[in-house]
Amino acid sequence: MASKLVAVVAGVGPGTGAAIARRFAAKYPIVLLARNPDNFKSLVSEINERGGKAIGISTDISSASSVQSAFGKIKEEFGNDVGLAAAVFNASGKFLKKPFLELTEEEYLSEYVVAGKGAFLFSQATLPLLLKSTERNPNHPPTLIFTGATASVKGSPQFSSFANGKFALRALSQSLAREFYPKGVHVAHAIIDGVIDIPKTKEWLKDAGPDAKINPDAIADSYWHLHTQPRSTFTQEIDIRPWVEKW
Amino acid sequence: MASKLVAVVAGVGPGTGAAIARRFAAKYPIVLLARNPDNFKSLVSEINERGGKAIGISTDISSASSVQSAFGKIKEEFGNDVGLAAAVFNASGKFLKKPFLELTEEEYLSEYVVAGKGAFLFSQATLPLLLKSTERNPNHPPTLIFTGATASVKGSPQFSSFANGKFALRALSQSLAREFYPKGVHVAHAIIDGVIDIPKTKEWLKDAGPDAKINPDAIADSYWHLHTQPRSTFTQEIDIRPWVEKW
Amino acid sequence: MASKLVAVVAGVGPGTGAAIARRFAAKYPIVLLARNPDNFKSLVSEINERGGKAIGISTDISSASSVQSAFGKIKEEFGNDVGLAAAVFNASGKFLKKPFLELTEEEYLSEYVVAGKGAFLFSQATLPLLLKSTERNPNHPPTLIFTGATASVKGSPQFSSFANGKFALRALSQSLAREFYPKGVHVAHAIIDGVIDIPKTKEWLKDAGPDAKINPDAIADSYWHLHTQPRSTFTQEIDIRPWVEKW
Amino acid sequence: MASKLVAVVAGVGPGTGAAIARRFAAKYPIVLLARNPDNFKSLVSEINERGGKAIGISTDISSASSVQSAFGKIKEEFGNDVGLAAAVFNASGKFLKKPFLELTEEEYLSEYVVAGKGAFLFSQATLPLLLKSTERNPNHPPTLIFTGATASVKGSPQFSSFANGKFALRALSQSLAREFYPKGVHVAHAIIDGVIDIPKTKEWLKDAGPDAKINPDAIADSYWHLHTQPRSTFTQEIDIRPWVEKW
Repeated sequence: MASKLVAVVAGVGPGTGAAIARRFAAKYPIVLLARNPDNFKSLVSEINERGGKAIGISTDISSASSVQSAFGKIKEEFGNDVGLAAAVFNASGKFLKKPFLELTEEEYLSEYVVAGKGAFLFSQATLPLLLKSTERNPNHPPTLIFTGATASVKGSPQFSSFANGKFALRALSQSLAREFYPKGVHVAHAIIDGVIDIPKTKEWLKDAGPDAKINPDAIADSYWHLHTQPRSTFTQEIDIRPWVEKW
Repeated sequence: MASKLVAVVAGVGPGTGAAIARRFAAKYPIVLLARNPDNFKSLVSEINERGGKAIGISTDISSASSVQSAFGKIKEEFGNDVGLAAAVFNASGKFLKKPFLELTEEEYLSEYVVAGKGAFLFSQATLPLLLKSTERNPNHPPTLIFTGATASVKGSPQFSSFANGKFALRALSQSLAREFYPKGVHVAHAIIDGVIDIPKTKEWLKDAGPDAKINPDAIADSYWHLHTQPRSTFTQEIDIRPWVEKW
Repeated sequence: MASKLVAVVAGVGPGTGAAIARRFAAKYPIVLLARNPDNFKSLVSEINERGGKAIGISTDISSASSVQSAFGKIKEEFGNDVGLAAAVFNASGKFLKKPFLELTEEEYLSEYVVAGKGAFLFSQATLPLLLKSTERNPNHPPTLIFTGATASVKGSPQFSSFANGKFALRALSQSLAREFYPKGVHVAHAIIDGVIDIPKTKEWLKDAGPDAKINPDAIADSYWHLHTQPRSTFTQEIDIRPWVEKW
Repeated sequence: MASKLVAVVAGVGPGTGAAIARRFAAKYPIVLLARNPDNFKSLVSEINERGGKAIGISTDISSASSVQSAFGKIKEEFGNDVGLAAAVFNASGKFLKKPFLELTEEEYLSEYVVAGKGAFLFSQATLPLLLKSTERNPNHPPTLIFTGATASVKGSPQFSSFANGKFALRALSQSLAREFYPKGVHVAHAIIDGVIDIPKTKEWLKDAGPDAKINPDAIADSYWHLHTQPRSTFTQEIDIRPWVEKW
């Protein structure tokens, strides 16, 4: 009997992570990682009630032992020969805007702890399971996707902490793409350039007209599209922004 | 009664253009533009026989009068109030590799004649028809896609002519995106970084293993995906390359 | 007796071109190319009166025969074995801001005629003379510099014509760098991102405070610095902008 | 009496750092920071013997207390009102090439500890002293330069650790440029794309012909040129590579 093929999403809140999870849950059992279980509890219920399969694991993505423990639980749940169809790194630190000279060391490192160290731990945990799946799902090669931001390609004033982490994440995505494409794993990076339409941003851009905020479900559709690309035709980077965004 | 909504592809040969045409023909009547009718005749028949609707128009994309004539025929065929759901500029000049000092002026300009002047004429002809469609197809905003290449972002030695045209095309795609996004038209650019698997390249990369060449149908799937993005969530640029490509 | 080693600047008006000419005239006899002789007459006098050596040649940089004639005159003046120490392409078309659908074909092509075709003609005329100088001036390898703009790397709305030409110019500079670096010619590109302080811009940015416009003499200093780099240590691209510029 | 205006270089070994120090020591008293005093001892002697003024301070650039202690010593030596004319961050971690899945967490973070955390600490320590100098040296605005690498703009296979740190450093340089340009501090980033000619690389590229390695003195000349740019005409980024480098 074929081993299980599942998807995992790190950084699941009420926005993009949840939309991605729903989208991939239509095809694969899904594992949701977030530090705070409140961020995935209702989503896990929702997916399971709809006939999908989801589990949530409280995980500190920047802690090696916490990540190790999470992937131990995944194997307990789905078997030691579990493979990954897709892994999405959607975690972010605090979106911090502050004059450079007022930043504490901890504040400056706060995005890197997630986008640097966390992405490293997540990639090291998922790549072996993605590599195991290259033969099992030939039409949809195993896919590792990183969520970036405007700050992935532009260091704006007072955003040194955020840009520092997001640039580092993009570097990782490129290096992994060049190393793991030839092994059959699709590694991609998305530059989300705009405000995402989630509960937290409800009051933002109210005067910007309709559809001025990015639809998380549409991001999820694009991530799913990346997942469906055959290995002859991989996209490494996409940008995503609303029609009214200046850039 | 609603007016017709059609798609148009410029630069249809036996490769990417044909694949894109087939993909969009599943949903829209399709117009194929190519200088040599041999490049679209069998495809037109194929699409019409399958129950789609296709017409081919012999067009010199770098001639204002030829482009004007082509769009006159489109209106004759589909009505004066025809709108465009999608327009794809897939034309290319000669893929010329030559030491710079051996190039004639005509050779140097040969890619620009298509990617510069031709893309200008195509964009001026299609944008008014795309703008007419923003209300008619709200889920799939009208889409203008340009096909680029490695040379769109890198000027390689002995490829000055090709890069000169492809950089110019990318500039156009960015400027149009920034001008027409807020008017509801999705403008995108694709960097095709690798050899496409078409009859002409049959003997290329024979030792590179399976799937070393880009699948035109998969390019078409990505173009279709771009077309399906809502205006809140537009992608302006994607890259596409095979898993074994060095870059 | 050693042959002459001269410098040539295309696109000399009262701004950057003149400043570059003055800077290089301190070391080399200098040739000034501009369509309108009024643009170089007083500068030629000024340099010659200061003890330098300058000639001006009225040249349409986008006309093959005009460029050929200009370089014929250079050989008449400095001998058939004249070599180039430096060649600077500083010509620009009309800085045109206009809605895309209002552009005529001629307007769209107006920047490309200079930055595309003109730069091609200038490069083909100068590179053979630069190649002749690689042994004569070992500490300052022969240098070919292209002046770009913000629009070299960003296609802004309503600037499609300008960006189209400037992107194409940047492509040329990259392709030539990769082909001619190994032959000993230094090819560089400068992104001038801001308003240059010249008579034409006297009324611009009046409220932006001191030094809000780029100093042409400082551009010239940077071009001279590029010229002094040894072949082990070439810079291909620099950006230049005022301290108060947003970007 | 005017207060002292000095320069500081972090990351001084027998290569680029030493060349930069010599170049800036011709004009300013110079402070050399390196973890291992053996890396600056002879250079300090050399500069002082030639009539310059140099001090070396053993500093762990990634330790807040060590950096704080170093800048305490600088004030002891040059007075509490010391200002910085220039600060150069030239430190690097270990240039590590290793398959991603074989990296330990410590190895992955090894470049970031320097290029991320170290650059943060250095910038926070130097920017207040650079800001103090904007009026004192109007022709040569205070300058903060970061040394990058190929890996600053390209994540190559098996170089995830190096690229991760170098991308982060570039992000910092951009964010600081956009925040501190308007305050009068010139922030720049150099992409050193090639092998530098230092004792450690003596045996490298032996068959690549003459001048195949970057000359550290020429890098220093370019850094000095950046320092001499007026605030109307700042360069934020330069690339530097040998004539025979492929890129």
